Amino acid sequence: MRPDTNSVDSLAALAAVITSRLPAHGGNPETSYVARLLHKGPDAFLKKIGEEATEVVMAAKDADHGGNKTKIVQEVADLWFHCMVALAHYGLSPADVVAELLRREGTSGLEEKAMRKVGQRESQEQENAS
Amino acid sequence: MRPDTNSVDSLAALAAVITSRLPAHGGNPETSYVARLLHKGPDAFLKKIGEEATEVVMAAKDADHGGNKTKIVQEVADLWFHCMVALAHYGLSPADVVAELLRREGTSGLEEKAMRKVGQRESQEQENAS
Amino acid sequence: MRPDTNSVDSLAALAAVITSRLPAHGGNPETSYVARLLHKGPDAFLKKIGEEATEVVMAAKDADHGGNKTKIVQEVADLWFHCMVALAHYGLSPADVVAELLRREGTSGLEEKAMRKVGQRESQEQENAS
Amino acid sequence: MRPDTNSVDSLAALAAVITSRLPAHGGNPETSYVARLLHKGPDAFLKKIGEEATEVVMAAKDADHGGNKTKIVQEVADLWFHCMVALAHYGLSPADVVAELLRREGTSGLEEKAMRKVGQRESQEQENAS
Repeated sequence: MRPDTNSVDSLAALAAVITSRLPAHGGNPETSYVARLLHKGPDAFLKKIGEEATEVVMAAKDADHGGNKTKIVQEVADLWFHCMVALAHYGLSPADVVAELLRREGTSGLEEKAMRKVGQRESQEQENAS
Repeated sequence: MRPDTNSVDSLAALAAVITSRLPAHGGNPETSYVARLLHKGPDAFLKKIGEEATEVVMAAKDADHGGNKTKIVQEVADLWFHCMVALAHYGLSPADVVAELLRREGTSGLEEKAMRKVGQRESQEQENAS
Repeated sequence: MRPDTNSVDSLAALAAVITSRLPAHGGNPETSYVARLLHKGPDAFLKKIGEEATEVVMAAKDADHGGNKTKIVQEVADLWFHCMVALAHYGLSPADVVAELLRREGTSGLEEKAMRKVGQRESQEQENAS
Repeated sequence: MRPDTNSVDSLAALAAVITSRLPAHGGNPETSYVARLLHKGPDAFLKKIGEEATEVVMAAKDADHGGNKTKIVQEVADLWFHCMVALAHYGLSPADVVAELLRREGTSGLEEKAMRKVGQRESQEQENAS
């Protein structure tokens, strides 16, 4: 696995390592951090997603005030990693996530799709508020 | 951008779209959701990271109780998407995140690296608690 | 409700207002923000808890870098407020939360209780890691 | 300190215990969990706020699916407790938070104030989106 391969392949390779740590695949909670998280069950890794998201925000705020941007990369890596642990638990993969992002981008463009979604939300809010 | 190809870095392509929405690149906050988020500044998209992480957790809890797993994919896509908006703002890319994940995996394996990190934390905690 | 009086439980009074907005109590989603949140159901106000927690963190980080501490108070107020909306939905009250905090404090002191809890966690982690 | 006193007084008493654990007040990180958090600095307790908010959400989702509501009370207590640690660090108190909540409630009612705020946000969003 080398950093110059494309992201999706690399993510798939990482996902394969994580999947091999599932209890059903013989992952050993005593020697593997990932196996331990998966063994403890959803609350353990979901809590980490909330915690790591907060750490991304803190690293970003520090960068806003002159801090090191490398910290942001490390925290996003932590966040995505724990998302991948959750995905593995539910039989899902980062490829599913990338496919969903591509599906949204589709032919009409990511932007228009997102804008329409936002527009709908705002119209609905407006209705509710009136 | 097609999901069935290996030769294209899908995340990089998405990141390129997001980057083109930066104010410095002429992104228009009135026609683009991403340009709007980037225009509003860090607090706008960082808040979304906290919110979307919570939505991932809620979708996962629903799946634990029989809910649709597709929702998890959608929410992780939302979370990663807003992380990519943040990365673009700070001049970073998903490739940096993937490289960091690969760096950790390294030659000695993702697991051992993570375990060592956890071990160190626990030793330190133990010291502090004693 | 006046802040200068000790005889009124201010949080209880606020909780009473929130409770009166429950659908079962005739809360009107078209005229009341709280009734609207309660009407939409758990995901609406739980998402806000994640979002407001993130805003507390951002305000605190800004204060670390010279920002206004008043912002922290406002964001904690937002967070506690949405927690109170959630409590109301589940038939719980801030008094239950305060009672739980007092129960922990108990006779032996908040600290010892918390330390024991942390100590147990660390021992368990240590066991799992070994 | 007894659970039948009003919440504001009880919160003030708890805040006094927390404040006494500040490094400047001689809090000992080796015997006190709170002193340890305060000694480690903002990132330590802010991370906990993100983590505990996530745990509130998980407990609520479990309750939605038949789980024990007591768990929600415990998790909100954890969340508010760590907010109080943060408040103490910044020289703020739960009384400031309650005062802010009362201020919003004011003479015209909590609801109308909140609705106006939401209305303004929505108008602004609408403008930005148009």
